[in-house]
Amino acid sequence: MEKSNTNERLHRLRAYMNRMGIDVCIIPSTDPHQSEYPASQWGLRAYLSGFTGSAGTLAVSNSEAHLWTDSRYFLQAETQLSGSSIQLQRMGNHGVPDLLDWLKSQKPSVVGLDGRLFNYDYVQKLETLLPGCRFLLQAPAYETLWPERPKAPSASIQAFPLEHNGRSSLDKLTDLRLALHHLGAQDQIIASLDEIAWLLNLRGRDIRYNPVFESYVWLNETDCILFVQTEKLDATAQQSLREAGVKTAPYNSFYDFLKTIRSKGLLTDFNTLNASVIALLKENCTLINQASPIALMKACKNPVELNGFRNAMRAEGIALTRWLHWLEQKSLGSNEYECSKQLETFRTLCPDYIEESFSSIVGFKANGAIVHYEATAEQAEPIHGEGALLVDVGGHYKYGTTDCTRSIYLHGKPSSDYKRDYTDLLKGLIALSTARFPQGTRGSQLDVLARQFLWQRQENYLHGTGHGVGHCLNVHEGPQSIRMNENPTPLRCGMVVSNEPGLYRTGQYGIRLENLLCVQEYGSFLQFETLTLCPFETTCIDTKQLHAHEIQWINHYHQHVYHTLSEALDEEVRSWLYKKTKPIQQQ
Amino acid sequence: MEKSNTNERLHRLRAYMNRMGIDVCIIPSTDPHQSEYPASQWGLRAYLSGFTGSAGTLAVSNSEAHLWTDSRYFLQAETQLSGSSIQLQRMGNHGVPDLLDWLKSQKPSVVGLDGRLFNYDYVQKLETLLPGCRFLLQAPAYETLWPERPKAPSASIQAFPLEHNGRSSLDKLTDLRLALHHLGAQDQIIASLDEIAWLLNLRGRDIRYNPVFESYVWLNETDCILFVQTEKLDATAQQSLREAGVKTAPYNSFYDFLKTIRSKGLLTDFNTLNASVIALLKENCTLINQASPIALMKACKNPVELNGFRNAMRAEGIALTRWLHWLEQKSLGSNEYECSKQLETFRTLCPDYIEESFSSIVGFKANGAIVHYEATAEQAEPIHGEGALLVDVGGHYKYGTTDCTRSIYLHGKPSSDYKRDYTDLLKGLIALSTARFPQGTRGSQLDVLARQFLWQRQENYLHGTGHGVGHCLNVHEGPQSIRMNENPTPLRCGMVVSNEPGLYRTGQYGIRLENLLCVQEYGSFLQFETLTLCPFETTCIDTKQLHAHEIQWINHYHQHVYHTLSEALDEEVRSWLYKKTKPIQQQ
Repeated sequence: MEKSNTNERLHRLRAYMNRMGIDVCIIPSTDPHQSEYPASQWGLRAYLSGFTGSAGTLAVSNSEAHLWTDSRYFLQAETQLSGSSIQLQRMGNHGVPDLLDWLKSQKPSVVGLDGRLFNYDYVQKLETLLPGCRFLLQAPAYETLWPERPKAPSASIQAFPLEHNGRSSLDKLTDLRLALHHLGAQDQIIASLDEIAWLLNLRGRDIRYNPVFESYVWLNETDCILFVQTEKLDATAQQSLREAGVKTAPYNSFYDFLKTIRSKGLLTDFNTLNASVIALLKENCTLINQASPIALMKACKNPVELNGFRNAMRAEGIALTRWLHWLEQKSLGSNEYECSKQLETFRTLCPDYIEESFSSIVGFKANGAIVHYEATAEQAEPIHGEGALLVDVGGHYKYGTTDCTRSIYLHGKPSSDYKRDYTDLLKGLIALSTARFPQGTRGSQLDVLARQFLWQRQENYLHGTGHGVGHCLNVHEGPQSIRMNENPTPLRCGMVVSNEPGLYRTGQYGIRLENLLCVQEYGSFLQFETLTLCPFETTCIDTKQLHAHEIQWINHYHQHVYHTLSEALDEEVRSWLYKKTKPIQQQ
Repeated sequence: MEKSNTNERLHRLRAYMNRMGIDVCIIPSTDPHQSEYPASQWGLRAYLSGFTGSAGTLAVSNSEAHLWTDSRYFLQAETQLSGSSIQLQRMGNHGVPDLLDWLKSQKPSVVGLDGRLFNYDYVQKLETLLPGCRFLLQAPAYETLWPERPKAPSASIQAFPLEHNGRSSLDKLTDLRLALHHLGAQDQIIASLDEIAWLLNLRGRDIRYNPVFESYVWLNETDCILFVQTEKLDATAQQSLREAGVKTAPYNSFYDFLKTIRSKGLLTDFNTLNASVIALLKENCTLINQASPIALMKACKNPVELNGFRNAMRAEGIALTRWLHWLEQKSLGSNEYECSKQLETFRTLCPDYIEESFSSIVGFKANGAIVHYEATAEQAEPIHGEGALLVDVGGHYKYGTTDCTRSIYLHGKPSSDYKRDYTDLLKGLIALSTARFPQGTRGSQLDVLARQFLWQRQENYLHGTGHGVGHCLNVHEGPQSIRMNENPTPLRCGMVVSNEPGLYRTGQYGIRLENLLCVQEYGSFLQFETLTLCPFETTCIDTKQLHAHEIQWINHYHQHVYHTLSEALDEEVRSWLYKKTKPIQQQ
């Protein structure tokens, strides 16, 4: 996109702000469902700013424009904002004011924000921060600001069958109603798209990579209504909803429906429900502000889901092995984008493969240091000569979802610095993978295990070590996480989390290693089972840095990878994998 | 104490409750200053229940009596409550209701609690929990309930000199006033006794082991008043207060003074100020409920204080070495209590020694598994035959405070189980001691480093790994900690914390190893300096469990201990220490 576009679009926004008497406008990256990855019609922030990363908030006053984003996107945002009048605010960096501080300093009289795009907690925080300020919560004039705005998605919605979900929607509704009863709630409003898809055992395609569909749900002890563009429901979905006793209503009738609710105990999570929803409910209902019980129910996978994960890992592992072999042997002369397409070719050999679970990251040399880098057909670094390659890729299969990061060194030998970094990251990954911990342990308590070896050298990564992974749903899900920040949710049996320490040398290379783990019992304690099946790069390991138990872990893991995948591989790739997974020795 | 006493005392309490129309009475372990260790006049809970541990809350209804305490005191409370009608509630154990749950289940109309003995946060929580319930916050009739109640302490208060405190009270007051200004506060009420002692560079003897004195402080931008029994101030204290521009007023005039304050911004920490204080202030003042800035200022030791700590460690290390030698060579036939007295004998050889910083724990065999065990002259296990001994001891010196735990095996050879436990604890201690971490890291993030090896075997300890340590003040202080529980305070340069993993085999033995550490810079990161100087028991180490860097750490530490202490020791003890600190080899 040309920068002149950005400036013209900001000009249009400011003209709108002047018309409305708005001093500061805040434009987030989400949708009315607080989705991390919204449908394209909710991409106003990207449209106005030119910054396409998944996380970032634009704030515009009459004279200033700022974009706040996190460390994953610093380099990308620098590139995409350069030449525009928008100032990049690198969140978490020393001396960078947060949006609220900046907003306060502007002393605005009127702040404009689309109330559908902010959770109620956030709006309350703003109101406390700026007493006396007026908040205009109405939707901005999209037709003026964004004439080319895409339409609402219309992709069909299918049933997600029992053989893969492991628990019928009827049973899930029963569980949920029991949970509501325990919370003293009579009914609940659900807006999180992945919670709805999980609860009703339906899958859509409204949002790329995330098999969800735009919808809301209201339910009480006896009734459940799904608000959705009903024409999107295919026959399997309709049948499934009938069996679960779920009625449907048009998506657009939801806000009118809210006005009719008279509840003495309505479960509404102020952290996921948007401010416009809460504003309508506050009038006539007693609200119970509690996290939706679905988040935790969904996060703790049942045995069928876990088995699906394992099968997906095997299918993905076969594709990844073929791809890594191809990258090593045949990538010279291609480019990052073509490399990612090649993975798709290998994946589609499996009939159960559906689509990517997120946009593939294939970053060569310095691009590997851009944490959420995305090469495009138009702009991609050629694989020219030797260098480090970081690949972070994942797929949805009929029965499970994958997310795996590997770092390899192509067409040459890695430097000792690279090997040192690679080895410390691998040591961190192993330390977390082999942790055992009592019930009640939170991810923030374990996070240091993955970082400790980097910290010894004053190195760190500013992203989380682990996120929850949805089952044939969003590749990022809560409520658990493994991060430096506190998150009060304990890890529980059946949860799937990523384990992905990384290190980024700006201008040189990035290394990240990622396996998915699931939490399982170990006596009265808990431990992790490693789900991902993909070899590490033993030529990048400095074995002198490893302890015997780490060597043993690597060899055992590689043996497991080889034995699980080799049968499905042709002779050439199999013997390549055999060499790749050969036991390493302590030096 | 005979159990019949307990029952008679509870009977008197219930008679009082009936007179007052109280359904449930709650009696905590603290004083009006929220002290962990209060003066004996505040020991009503111990008097009524017979349980003498430092932490525990008694709740009594007409038909039930319960005592809640934490894992440190389970065994002690079992013994002391046995035969009484009081039911022990083991906090943190599965299925144990917390006090608030129990209280709610009683559906009381009137709850009686001495408003001076509960922080305001807690009382607010009770009010929310029990809407419609009346809370009688007045002091109970001590004269009826506890005729033998001790008088208020009258020990003298001295100045704590600049050569040891490193920063004059005038300068500390200036720092504090600046901090108040930044918080938008005009004045502050301080009730924490250690905060007052630190701020005014005074030390008292009102509370055993804790060199504080009963007092309150009010200060604003220009004035500062110390409410104290003024006759307790000796000449040095009076002189010091004059130099700092601090006025004095009688301790008993404090509550009347509160009624006269008219502040538009009074800093009052609802978590440390008691409910009676807040009740008086709420009428006429705008309260700013924030943590006192003093806690953090006090926790980050200045170079003079740190140097004092190091000197205290050396003095204590000499006493400990002589004692460990004595325990090994001469303790047979004595008992736990006599052993602890023997340490006092060695300590008093140093003219700078003042007193114990807490009640010595000397636990032989099964008594070592009682986390806060205290042998007495009347009841102490004889050191008879072989067995594990756990010693957790600390002292106040003129210039610093110590706290050290060692576990040794007397008059025989430890079992392989004991050695395995000992070694895993030592590995945990080393892992935490050698951690490096970025600015902003909280203790809860590092806690796992000390526990990880126990967790591998489904073992754990339920107390914290580390507490802050006051400088010639309370041996337990905040705001930082290293625990499984989240505590938002990051570790900062100059903080002193303990590192004390433990493992308790009920009926067999307890092992705990504890060093004090101070936080120091490591480039842009932080790391720990080990302060404590006392050998570990190499004969209890299973070197096969150790990695090379752990062996190296032990040998380096022992070398440092020997070189720092040996000069001051006589020939016999020196050559004993030489043997004790001889390098160990990997097997």
